[in-house]
Amino acid sequence: MTDLGAFLESARARIDDALDRAVPPLGTPPPLLHEAMRYAALAPGKRLRGAVVLATCDLLAGETDAAAALAGAIEMVHAASLILDDLPSMDNATLRRGRPALHHAFGEANAILTSVALLNLAFETIARAEAFRPAVRVEMGGRLARAVGADGLVGGQVADLAATGTRLGLEGLEYVHSHKTGALFLAAAEIGALAAGGKDRDLRALLGYAKNLGLAFQITDDLLDYSGSPETTGKDAGMDRDKTTFVDLCGIDGARRLVDELIDTSVSALQPFGRRRARLVALAELVRVRDR
Amino acid sequence: MTDLGAFLESARARIDDALDRAVPPLGTPPPLLHEAMRYAALAPGKRLRGAVVLATCDLLAGETDAAAALAGAIEMVHAASLILDDLPSMDNATLRRGRPALHHAFGEANAILTSVALLNLAFETIARAEAFRPAVRVEMGGRLARAVGADGLVGGQVADLAATGTRLGLEGLEYVHSHKTGALFLAAAEIGALAAGGKDRDLRALLGYAKNLGLAFQITDDLLDYSGSPETTGKDAGMDRDKTTFVDLCGIDGARRLVDELIDTSVSALQPFGRRRARLVALAELVRVRDR
Repeated sequence: MTDLGAFLESARARIDDALDRAVPPLGTPPPLLHEAMRYAALAPGKRLRGAVVLATCDLLAGETDAAAALAGAIEMVHAASLILDDLPSMDNATLRRGRPALHHAFGEANAILTSVALLNLAFETIARAEAFRPAVRVEMGGRLARAVGADGLVGGQVADLAATGTRLGLEGLEYVHSHKTGALFLAAAEIGALAAGGKDRDLRALLGYAKNLGLAFQITDDLLDYSGSPETTGKDAGMDRDKTTFVDLCGIDGARRLVDELIDTSVSALQPFGRRRARLVALAELVRVRDR
Repeated sequence: MTDLGAFLESARARIDDALDRAVPPLGTPPPLLHEAMRYAALAPGKRLRGAVVLATCDLLAGETDAAAALAGAIEMVHAASLILDDLPSMDNATLRRGRPALHHAFGEANAILTSVALLNLAFETIARAEAFRPAVRVEMGGRLARAVGADGLVGGQVADLAATGTRLGLEGLEYVHSHKTGALFLAAAEIGALAAGGKDRDLRALLGYAKNLGLAFQITDDLLDYSGSPETTGKDAGMDRDKTTFVDLCGIDGARRLVDELIDTSVSALQPFGRRRARLVALAELVRVRDR
């Protein structure tokens, strides 16, 4: 196994462990809610956003043991966003992570409320992460709130839904996905860096890395959605039929060229970090070839 | 106008002003989202939970000017929770605060996302409230997250929906409403007290005040829903038809007796605060007679 493969494997295990400890056990009242929270948060996943937290923390020589809880919080937010994306009033998906989407398993109202519960648990987890100074925790919470809200995931999702059935240009599509996907990658990188005592200049450099990585990741998602099947992606195929995708706008080769450009830009933003950047570079290279 | 009347009037104006400043202006992209956020957050309301923030801050001789932003954050959470309560998959309400419910005005998906955006803005507002030390802000954020999540509003709402169409006992009904309504009153009191540098013993005393006040408030809501019309309440009448209410379990006189008991308990919890408690006492007395 490559160094990156071993890192991702160990990150996933540590994040799953953090999620298992943070989400209250089955049976906690109300039982249905906690069953749904665990179903959504502990569903098998790559935990890539959480791995970004651990990798950026390690980049700045931070203590990744304490950062695992923060990585778990980022993954709670990601799980919460997937629940909403899948709702009947949004993508109306049936499958997620190889299992019935949450509203199919628990009903629509419970799905919405589970999403909100996971989001709150993420904020609570950060607020209670006592290994970090209060000033650091408050900065993490503020950045996470911004990444999720109207200028982040939610804004991207509203714009995405508004554009469904219409034809977006490249600029519009980049708006949607830099918010819908990029913002949480960015928050993950920032939170990992803050956990390691990162300064403003570190966060600025990581902005270039994470934003471009997040967008490249979304484009490879489009490429996978175009060519993939539920067996390989764990979600419904062809969900993007009514939506403009990067593949629609640029073709397969053009979308791959765009991924190449974004990954190149992403990697070059890491220059200031010297040799410690190797793992984040390898992660970006992995995203580059996800669909190939 | 009584002293309390003047306070509530001025609190409402200050909170509305804080909301107006915190929620980005119309036209901010995506425009639809910001229009919906303003529609929901700035809809006419009593701002009672926000007033609790200012009143508890004042109780402990805190600086209420800086606390207005926090009161606005509590009202954002309240507005976010009303949006979800009204959804087709939950209460399926048509009217709220005298106007079409948000999903009728903006569609269901946008309503859900607006709720999430307001919730995040509340956390961001607290994280950025620089008048308060980071340790205070982080404590406020943690308590708010707990009040909203699985052990608070969301837990109460899940239990409420699960019980729809069944008959709850008094204990079950108290569980629902101490979470669904009481938790945010409690967070409001805690955040106001923390803003004034309140200590653990202050917060513990306010727990007795706010929890009982919140539950009494819910019972008076049941009484108003039982006897009220959309013209007076600004929401659909008889929405509780499929739900157990305190009026069902105790009758009108019994429900009023319960309100009396809760308000008495609430008021006596304020004993340690001496003469400064007068305003919070008056607020509780106002809740006592809301429906009479």
